Amino acid sequence: MENFIYSNPTKIIFGKNTVSRIGKEALKFGKKALIVYGKGSIKKNGVYDTVTDSLRKNGVDFAEHSGVKPNPVLSHVKEGIELFKKEKCDMIIAVGGGSVIDESKAVSCGVFYEGDVWDFFIEKAEIQKAVPILVVLTLPATGSEANSGAVVTNEKTLQKYSIHSYHLFPKVSILDPSTTFSLPIEQTAYGAVDAILHVSEGFFTTKDTDCVITDNYIYGVIKTLINSTERIMKDPKDYNARASFMWSATLALNGQQALGYKGIEFVNHVIEHSLSAIYDIPHGLGLGVVFPGFLKYLISKGEYERILEFGENILGIKNDSRKETALKTVNEIENWFRKLGLKNKLSENSIFEKDFEKITKNAMELGNLWGWSYTEKDVIEILNYQK
Amino acid sequence: MENFIYSNPTKIIFGKNTVSRIGKEALKFGKKALIVYGKGSIKKNGVYDTVTDSLRKNGVDFAEHSGVKPNPVLSHVKEGIELFKKEKCDMIIAVGGGSVIDESKAVSCGVFYEGDVWDFFIEKAEIQKAVPILVVLTLPATGSEANSGAVVTNEKTLQKYSIHSYHLFPKVSILDPSTTFSLPIEQTAYGAVDAILHVSEGFFTTKDTDCVITDNYIYGVIKTLINSTERIMKDPKDYNARASFMWSATLALNGQQALGYKGIEFVNHVIEHSLSAIYDIPHGLGLGVVFPGFLKYLISKGEYERILEFGENILGIKNDSRKETALKTVNEIENWFRKLGLKNKLSENSIFEKDFEKITKNAMELGNLWGWSYTEKDVIEILNYQK
Repeated sequence: MENFIYSNPTKIIFGKNTVSRIGKEALKFGKKALIVYGKGSIKKNGVYDTVTDSLRKNGVDFAEHSGVKPNPVLSHVKEGIELFKKEKCDMIIAVGGGSVIDESKAVSCGVFYEGDVWDFFIEKAEIQKAVPILVVLTLPATGSEANSGAVVTNEKTLQKYSIHSYHLFPKVSILDPSTTFSLPIEQTAYGAVDAILHVSEGFFTTKDTDCVITDNYIYGVIKTLINSTERIMKDPKDYNARASFMWSATLALNGQQALGYKGIEFVNHVIEHSLSAIYDIPHGLGLGVVFPGFLKYLISKGEYERILEFGENILGIKNDSRKETALKTVNEIENWFRKLGLKNKLSENSIFEKDFEKITKNAMELGNLWGWSYTEKDVIEILNYQK
Repeated sequence: MENFIYSNPTKIIFGKNTVSRIGKEALKFGKKALIVYGKGSIKKNGVYDTVTDSLRKNGVDFAEHSGVKPNPVLSHVKEGIELFKKEKCDMIIAVGGGSVIDESKAVSCGVFYEGDVWDFFIEKAEIQKAVPILVVLTLPATGSEANSGAVVTNEKTLQKYSIHSYHLFPKVSILDPSTTFSLPIEQTAYGAVDAILHVSEGFFTTKDTDCVITDNYIYGVIKTLINSTERIMKDPKDYNARASFMWSATLALNGQQALGYKGIEFVNHVIEHSLSAIYDIPHGLGLGVVFPGFLKYLISKGEYERILEFGENILGIKNDSRKETALKTVNEIENWFRKLGLKNKLSENSIFEKDFEKITKNAMELGNLWGWSYTEKDVIEILNYQK
C-alpha cells in the first residue's frame, strides 16, 4: 500500500428540497454570483427558479453565463472569465453536471490570471488562486462536485485536457437526487459508465494490488452503481435509487477511489478524451466504448488478475479456467453496457479505422503530458478490439 | 435515504516514515505545542523521538502532558488545560490512540472556556472555539483522528460521556502503519471490534434501510477489518494488513459510515460506556461483550432483516430458515471475537448479575441524554444474553 495525502474540504448538502439553501450558503462568500449553466434544462425542471429565488431572498445579486456545452470548450470559458470580471462577481454558482462545474472551475482560476487560461491545462502555469465555487448538481457522473479537477476542450487544437488544484474544490455542493428525476435515460447510463470508470482506472492500473480497503471501497461503489442504475431504468422516479446513484458517483472520484494505489494511469480517459475532442461524443459513451477494449488488451497480455477479482467480487463470476473467467467478465460488462443502450463499438458511433492514427496521435499527446506508459501500438490495439 | 450534511476538513498524511513530517505541519499553526501522550509506549517504539526531533528541527517549542489513561479521565483533562495555559501553547499534538486524541480534544476546547469543561459533555454549554489539534496516530481503533467527537470519563460521577463539534476535527493527522507493528495483540483485537461497531451501530438501528451505497460502504469496511485483523494475527509486521486496518478504522467513523441513514442510535456504545465507566474495562472489549447480546435481543424481537444482510454480504452465510441464519450469523460473530482472544461473557470479565441494575441505570442516563428509544428492560435483556 502506497503512501498518500488525502484532504477534501467540500461541504456536501444532500437530499430532498435542499436546492433552496443555495442563497444562505452563497451569502457566506459575497454579494454577487455568476450563475453558470448549460442549455436550459434547469429552466424546465424548476431548478433555475429555485436557485434564483433563494439568491434574491438572501440578497445575493447575480449575473448569468449560460450555454455550456456537454464537452465544455475553451472559447466559452474565456467568455465566462470576461463576464465574471465585467459583472464584478464574488463567486461562481455552477448549476448542472460535470461540464458546467468544470467550466466554472476554469473560469474561477482564469479570472486571477493575466495570461491565457489554457496555460494551466498544458502545464505552462500553476494555479495560485481561484474564486469560490458553489455547486447545485443536477447530473451525477463526473464527481467534479467534490474534487479538485476539471476538463475542458480546446476546440481549435482539438485537445481535451485537464487542470488540478486544491483551489478548485467547491466550497459547498448541493445534491438533491429529485432534480435528476427528469434526466434522459441515456444521461443516467453515461453517468453510470463514467463513475464506474473513475474507480476502475486505478483498480486496473495500480502497481501495488495489496490494498484491501480501497479494493473493497471500489467494489461497494460499483455494486451500488449497477444496482441503482438498474432500479432507475425500471422506475426513473425511484428516489432512493437516484440518491444512492448520486452519492456513489461522488464517492467514485472524490479522491478516496485510489488511496494507497501505486502509479495509476487514466488510460481509458486519455483515449476517450481523444475521441470526444475529435468527434464531440458524450464522455460516458466514449468510456463505454474504450473500457472493454482495454480489458481485452489486458487479457491478451496475460494480465488477468484484477479482471478476475472484479468478476468475482462485483459480478459474482467464478470459474476454474482463469482466461475463460476473465473473458466472461469482460463479456458481462459489455452486455451490461449494451443493456443500458450504449453502442460500444466505434463504428456504431461513426468512428472508423481510417481515423485510428489520428485518434492515437491525439491520445499520445495527452498521455505523454500526463506521463503514461502506453505506446501508439497499445492504443491501436485497444481501438482495434472495439472497431 | 435521509438528507444529510457532510464535511470533513482533516488532512490525512498516510504511510511509511511520515511521522517526521509533524514539525513542518505544526509550524503552520504556531510556535509552541503541547504534546499529549499516554503511558510511554511511544518512548519505547521511537515515535516520541521522531516527533520531538522533527519539532526541534522546525523550531517548534513544546511542553508535555503525559499519562493519559486508556479511558481518559476528567481530572487529567483539567490538568492538561492548566498546563496548556501555563505553557502558553498554540496547539496540541496528540501522539497515541483514541484516548490520547479524545483527551486532547477536551483540552482544546477547555482552554477557551471559563466554566467547568464537563459542561460541554452534559450539554450545559456549547463549544464555540478550540485550539488546533494535530495527531500522530499509533493505535487505530476509534476514528478520532478524523472526526469531531471525543469521549471522556468523569471518574467522580462514573459518567463516560462525549462531546461533538466541528471545531474538534484535527487539522492534520499522520497515520504511519509501521508504528503499529509493536502493538500488543489484544489492542489490535479491541481496535477491530471498536471499528466494526462504529459502522454497525448505524447499520442495525437505521429506520431507513434502503440506502445501498452506505450499506455497501460498510460491508467494505468490515470485510477489510476482518481480513486485515486475521493477517495481523498471523504476522504482526504485515505492513499492508496494518495499513488496510488503519485506514478502514478511520473510514469506520469519519462521518461517512451512516450517511443517509435515519434516526440511528449508538445502543452498544451507550451500554459499553456504562461498563467501562464503572469497571474501567477496555472499550473494544466491552463492545465485544455487548454487541452479540444486542443482536440476540434483535432476533428475540423478530428483527432479523439486517442481521441476514450482514450475514450474507459480509460472512457469506445464506440459508433457507431466516431465524436459523440470523442465529448462525450471530454465532459466527461471537466465535470470531473469541478467536481474537476476547472474553465476551460479562462474568468472564468479573461483571456479575448483581450489578445489572447499576449498569442499566448508568446506561439509561447517557442514553436519555442522547435521546435514545431503549428502556431499562431492553438493557437488562441485552446484558442477560451475555451474563
